[in-house]
Amino acid sequence: MKAVDEIRRELGEETVSTDPDDIEYHAFSDFTATNATEMPIAVVRPESTEQVSTIAKICTKYRVPMTPFGARSSVEGNFSSPYSGVCIDFCEMNKIIQFNPQDMDVVVEAGVNWMALNEEIKDSGLFLPPDPGPAAYIGGMVATNCSGTNAMRYGTMKDYVVNLTVVLADGTIIKTRQRPRKTSAGYNLNSLFTGSEGTLGIVTQATLKLAVLPTNLSIATAAFGSIHAAAAAANTMVLAGLPLTALELMDEAQMRTINQTGGTAGKMWVEGPTLFLKFSGTKSSVKDSAQAAQAICRQHGASTFDHVYTPKEMDQLWSARKLASLALVDAKPKDALMSGTDVAVPISRMADLIEESKAKATGLGLTNSVLGHVGDGNFHQALYFRPDETDKLKDCLDTMVQRAVEMEGTVTEGLLKELGPTTVGVMKALKDTLDPHWLLNPGKVFDE
Amino acid sequence: MKAVDEIRRELGEETVSTDPDDIEYHAFSDFTATNATEMPIAVVRPESTEQVSTIAKICTKYRVPMTPFGARSSVEGNFSSPYSGVCIDFCEMNKIIQFNPQDMDVVVEAGVNWMALNEEIKDSGLFLPPDPGPAAYIGGMVATNCSGTNAMRYGTMKDYVVNLTVVLADGTIIKTRQRPRKTSAGYNLNSLFTGSEGTLGIVTQATLKLAVLPTNLSIATAAFGSIHAAAAAANTMVLAGLPLTALELMDEAQMRTINQTGGTAGKMWVEGPTLFLKFSGTKSSVKDSAQAAQAICRQHGASTFDHVYTPKEMDQLWSARKLASLALVDAKPKDALMSGTDVAVPISRMADLIEESKAKATGLGLTNSVLGHVGDGNFHQALYFRPDETDKLKDCLDTMVQRAVEMEGTVTEGLLKELGPTTVGVMKALKDTLDPHWLLNPGKVFDE
Repeated sequence: MKAVDEIRRELGEETVSTDPDDIEYHAFSDFTATNATEMPIAVVRPESTEQVSTIAKICTKYRVPMTPFGARSSVEGNFSSPYSGVCIDFCEMNKIIQFNPQDMDVVVEAGVNWMALNEEIKDSGLFLPPDPGPAAYIGGMVATNCSGTNAMRYGTMKDYVVNLTVVLADGTIIKTRQRPRKTSAGYNLNSLFTGSEGTLGIVTQATLKLAVLPTNLSIATAAFGSIHAAAAAANTMVLAGLPLTALELMDEAQMRTINQTGGTAGKMWVEGPTLFLKFSGTKSSVKDSAQAAQAICRQHGASTFDHVYTPKEMDQLWSARKLASLALVDAKPKDALMSGTDVAVPISRMADLIEESKAKATGLGLTNSVLGHVGDGNFHQALYFRPDETDKLKDCLDTMVQRAVEMEGTVTEGLLKELGPTTVGVMKALKDTLDPHWLLNPGKVFDE
Repeated sequence: MKAVDEIRRELGEETVSTDPDDIEYHAFSDFTATNATEMPIAVVRPESTEQVSTIAKICTKYRVPMTPFGARSSVEGNFSSPYSGVCIDFCEMNKIIQFNPQDMDVVVEAGVNWMALNEEIKDSGLFLPPDPGPAAYIGGMVATNCSGTNAMRYGTMKDYVVNLTVVLADGTIIKTRQRPRKTSAGYNLNSLFTGSEGTLGIVTQATLKLAVLPTNLSIATAAFGSIHAAAAAANTMVLAGLPLTALELMDEAQMRTINQTGGTAGKMWVEGPTLFLKFSGTKSSVKDSAQAAQAICRQHGASTFDHVYTPKEMDQLWSARKLASLALVDAKPKDALMSGTDVAVPISRMADLIEESKAKATGLGLTNSVLGHVGDGNFHQALYFRPDETDKLKDCLDTMVQRAVEMEGTVTEGLLKELGPTTVGVMKALKDTLDPHWLLNPGKVFDE
């Protein structure tokens, strides 16, 4: 194909791969709810922003779709190529370009892994707070505005973007901002590109704010009799202003899965809706907060309250939360597929929607489980389904979108239903402006 | 004029004012560094989003500029009408529409004052954290992405926007999102409109996140021998992870002005660079943090460290910071004008740029003073100048833009110099898309 040939000529043989296994690896994943049927025609591994710009120029010339590819760890298929085209793999752009501890920021390429970054800079006492899947690259984290368990205290990826270097569809390179932590100069391009899933531009480099590593931490878990009781306890803690770093909920099905895959370092769990709490602050505030949290959990009928301080014990408790997604994949029956959802409603409605969604799926015979970021009213339901059960799955998802919108909430899959054609029309007008031929990661954000 | 006549017919006589005093009030202000020479032709006071939409439709039909007008408290002239047109005053849209304490959010019209809102909801234990000038309206706070002393701990206005109702230039009404606290559905229109100064759309209504009112507070102030010493102490505190709610700097000229206007409730201040610290958290963490802060300030040579807990004493100390801008206006010589700047650089460069900017202005004979949000590397320099000294003022501002950009920083006034034509071109393309005739608040964000 002409575009691939031209990229090969410009960037060199070794940068472009058309190996079938390589292409298949870049097209599909077991972790993804919705695998596309199409595959990319080639995988390109650029080494610089300039090379990405060259790729974009060539792809625009030949009207070939471009799909940026990070760590392949998305559970929502952000890296798939439903319209084929060229896959741009950022594995070679993995350099930490500049670390400024005094300014509390760092300049990195899009292919840097966040855990490697935090390991590299840990002696400075600083860290990048967003904590998605361990494999994730910075580029993907920006593209998806990733969250994680730390979001409760530290916010999401958009809160850490100081500036971005972005390659537009036509190959134009822009830098959204200079390097001050705060600015109101011009429009907020950082937030426009962050979370746009590579559909408005390709992020090649980012300057990121860092936060100060907490010196005192503790972890607590509490098992409840119902989702409502757990959610009510969580709300009470939030409204009481407890300085929680994380506040996560796993339902009884999730806890059962953890036990089925062997528990955590020998610990078997009560199979009930369980809150995972992380505290950080001064020594005394951590202690005060944990005591207050314990009292609140007891008031809401918690049957257990484990509170630990040592790194080893903290790991043992927290690993149940950390391994939740992996455990679901491990426990999946061989003939089943898995689908995930990303739902957010006003906090007071979360318990209702979780209970409804669980009852709906269970009623249809689909094994399902729920994991929630309670402080945000955001949760994920995972469903196992066999290929002949896609109707049931669709029924579950449609019902969830409908109910979430009625509750003034949001489901990633239900953009049009949630926002209506006028607002989506404005978003599409922005897309038209920045990517007039719709070549950037087509099939994402909008269906068409 | 046809547009005004048509608005009068559609919205009623009493909604439209062409009274010369009213128009002048809406055109100029003593608090503004850069007053325009033009005035609006009429002031319209709509009572609903639908009425704003009607105004926009008519203005677009006749190609008449529209300038949204809030509390008139901007020090940067955001409400001025340099291209004349219709001024849209939001004073009649001041209703709290829906308060959802369990969801920790509130739905308000654009003309609601933030202090009135916080007073209204204070019994719930919740509050809206951004604290700009006391008069400010929500609409203006969103339009300018306002900051304030609480930004250190709580972030800026964009961090509190759940959704916006926006009237586009052609009168189209959109709602950016539903009401979940967290969502990644579609593009982040909230952040695009927030901070766009009404140049992309007119915000008529907003759903805002609320935070939990801190129960334990204390205030400390410390005077230093130099800006560098104060900034170094501030950086050390931030890097030590002290849970500061606010971290503000006022230079010796600011402190002198406070004394000249009578001090604060009888207290006269040391006229040296002074840090203002606010602590919040559990009782013990407030105490621990203040002790740690005191040690750090002493290490950096602070000559005073006052730390107070009672509401009355906290008011006395904090009012020096709160009244800083008013004191500058009060102390201004009658024949002088005042200019303000908004500068941000990487944290490590702030002290340098402040010292340079002070030396430059003082060397040219211009009385000047500095107020900084140290945690962000963001500061404001205020300069007094006589009408025949505009050359000197321009010299100061140009030098500051130049130096800030060299330090990878930003000055609101230097957009093109900071970002370059390509990035500004992308911003202008977005403007073209949403406001093709450039009728929304023309003259703001971009010069043309």
